[in-house]
Amino acid sequence: KTDPDRLWDSLMEMAKIGPGMAGGNNRQTLTDADAEGRRLFQSWCEAEGMTMAVDRMGNMFMRFEGEDPSLDPVWIGSHLDTQPTGGKYDGVLGVLAGLEVVRSIKDMGLKTRRPIVVVNWTNEEGTRFAPAMLASGVFAGMHDEDFANARTDAEGKRFGDELERIGWRGTEDVGNRPIHAMFEYHIEQGPILEAEGKEIGVVTHGQGLWWLQVTLTGKDAHTGSTPMTMRVNAGLGMARITEAVHRIAMDHQPNAVGAIGQANVYPNSRNVIPGKAVFTIDFRSPELDKLTSMRSRLETEAAEIAKELGLGIEIEPVGHFDPVTFDENLVTVVRDAAERLGYSHMDIVSGAGHDACWINRIAPTVMIMCPCVDGLSHNEAEEISPQWASAGADVLLHAVLKVAEV
Amino acid sequence: KTDPDRLWDSLMEMAKIGPGMAGGNNRQTLTDADAEGRRLFQSWCEAEGMTMAVDRMGNMFMRFEGEDPSLDPVWIGSHLDTQPTGGKYDGVLGVLAGLEVVRSIKDMGLKTRRPIVVVNWTNEEGTRFAPAMLASGVFAGMHDEDFANARTDAEGKRFGDELERIGWRGTEDVGNRPIHAMFEYHIEQGPILEAEGKEIGVVTHGQGLWWLQVTLTGKDAHTGSTPMTMRVNAGLGMARITEAVHRIAMDHQPNAVGAIGQANVYPNSRNVIPGKAVFTIDFRSPELDKLTSMRSRLETEAAEIAKELGLGIEIEPVGHFDPVTFDENLVTVVRDAAERLGYSHMDIVSGAGHDACWINRIAPTVMIMCPCVDGLSHNEAEEISPQWASAGADVLLHAVLKVAEV
Ligand SMILES: NC(=O)NCCC(=O)O
Ligand SMILES: NC(=O)NCCC(=O)O
Repeated sequence: KTDPDRLWDSLMEMAKIGPGMAGGNNRQTLTDADAEGRRLFQSWCEAEGMTMAVDRMGNMFMRFEGEDPSLDPVWIGSHLDTQPTGGKYDGVLGVLAGLEVVRSIKDMGLKTRRPIVVVNWTNEEGTRFAPAMLASGVFAGMHDEDFANARTDAEGKRFGDELERIGWRGTEDVGNRPIHAMFEYHIEQGPILEAEGKEIGVVTHGQGLWWLQVTLTGKDAHTGSTPMTMRVNAGLGMARITEAVHRIAMDHQPNAVGAIGQANVYPNSRNVIPGKAVFTIDFRSPELDKLTSMRSRLETEAAEIAKELGLGIEIEPVGHFDPVTFDENLVTVVRDAAERLGYSHMDIVSGAGHDACWINRIAPTVMIMCPCVDGLSHNEAEEISPQWASAGADVLLHAVLKVAEV
Repeated sequence: KTDPDRLWDSLMEMAKIGPGMAGGNNRQTLTDADAEGRRLFQSWCEAEGMTMAVDRMGNMFMRFEGEDPSLDPVWIGSHLDTQPTGGKYDGVLGVLAGLEVVRSIKDMGLKTRRPIVVVNWTNEEGTRFAPAMLASGVFAGMHDEDFANARTDAEGKRFGDELERIGWRGTEDVGNRPIHAMFEYHIEQGPILEAEGKEIGVVTHGQGLWWLQVTLTGKDAHTGSTPMTMRVNAGLGMARITEAVHRIAMDHQPNAVGAIGQANVYPNSRNVIPGKAVFTIDFRSPELDKLTSMRSRLETEAAEIAKELGLGIEIEPVGHFDPVTFDENLVTVVRDAAERLGYSHMDIVSGAGHDACWINRIAPTVMIMCPCVDGLSHNEAEEISPQWASAGADVLLHAVLKVAEV
């Protein structure tokens, strides 16, 4: 078994970097805090005798040598970046549990035949630079490097420039690394495991996603002296499309969600009818036809809303992946490990996107989940118990030992 | 008559200070640009032999002496501050036309018995610090000075501190000044005069206003992994209240308007269901009962919307004035002046709030309006013609000459 206290201490230590305002974290990708978190993780890994490689996307590969260095390694990966008002576990747990697996293997005096690589993928969250899972996407050949480097944040800063600035652009070619199998251990970020009273989620599938960015163009005008009939109100258009997104997701129940996360009106002045609105839509479903149907219905309805209000409309897709089916053999390995360890478990679909969703396209991949309190994530109040954290780490350890061949 | 070129040149010169991004102005109140605009106006007035006094709210009183200095002066006032993406004429025209009246009186070698005071009122726009018409409101006894000084902008900066910082806090007691009559000349900011083909609006009434600031509190949560039924979506609540504001205003037609100008969701991240929304509502009507009815209906409907979605709600009134009836005698003076000068004119209700609305409570007051292209204001594309500008200035000159007694 893994050491619950050591894993928890590492989580708490990492959480000191980029603290949030309300007990969580703001360690957004490619900020100074991100750089500091990376350095801490590097120092911990090197203390265990692991060696580091960094690719041109800033992905960190910490290698723990196996008995046969020529064999393809087993990977354990997730991300250290957080939401602007994020929790202490989303992503971080998966990376530090990888380290804990290595520490436990050393404690037990074991040696695996295959090397183990613990990975920190750059910009998983996708809040600062859309899309999410950007660098694992480049690694898996879904995006090219120029696309990634040219992504800009809200202030117009480029991904590539910020990666250089924090000093974490490596030299290794992106994607040129053998993977025998990849494991990602993550908090559920939803309410199901807690509600069902299960310690372990065996992740069989992942939802697909469409991210759309909408720009509505109306006419700035005085809120007092412009008659109702003369208004071209982009804020009203945004409100109607917000309602449409909700209704469309409800109409696709079960197994569908939809919401608007970012919403901005311009000039955002009390006495000016908004002449412009820019906002982002997030639709997800584990069923491809529902995902496609939600997007196309939204496009139709949004165009009608814009037409009725006299607004210009542009809809730009800024993120997409199809529903994912994880590797059947690895799913069995994880389920068996949970069973053997005596942890209660159930099969589950990931509601969130994860680096594992991209890596699954190029190598056998699976995910393990633990519950989180009230299903809350992307919230500083995100919480898990040390017992939950270590149960999943134990399952990860056993699954890795099996696949890396002890 | 006034000098159309001189007036236009002054407008264009002032517009160079705090230029906008799209041909208009960003000379928001109590910014460095505001301070610079004030200094330019001061220098122009002093060059005409006027003397300056500044009160503790930063209101500038530029006095042109009359034959009998003991008589109560005739005032001409408006504001030099602008919206963040504002036009070159909103407010500025009224102040610089006041200066043009003085210049024209000097040109003609006339002397009025009463002194003339040209006023620049601080923070008319109310975008940076709500409410609008803040300093004329203090002058008229509607707010006290502590209230004004404690107003904060979006960054938490206090009105009082910013007034000190830009060096325009004067020493004069606020409100301690005799007024025989006040004139405010302003662009219409609406489409009526242009549509009716009239050069002059004789302003008989002004709309009343309610500004409400709404805060909705839900729960930040992951857009992907949170089931639709578990969401407490403050952004969806904002959308529904936006629609309610629109519907309520439509149900009170004619003579009623309503819109949301500022709209912010938090944490404003693509994959986070907004846990908080803060936005501002602007309702107006020239009829007091409609104004009251719109506010109370909104409060009822917003509470229902919040309840249905499980959201916390707070509604804070941040600005209010009742509908205004301007001074009957002065209205006649303005109408007669337009008639005598041969300008086409009509009676009109001001859709916007103006400093004149507060001063009307303590002294006989009236407004004059000129058309603006497409009724557009609070927009950098706000436009008027030099002919329109000078027609109103001529009417102002004649009205002032009459009331100030030549
Ligand atoms: N796990 C996670 O929150 N990833 C960010 C991408 C997403 O929104 O699903
Ligand atoms: N005239 C003008 O736009 N004043 C600002 C206050 C208001 O919104 O009416």
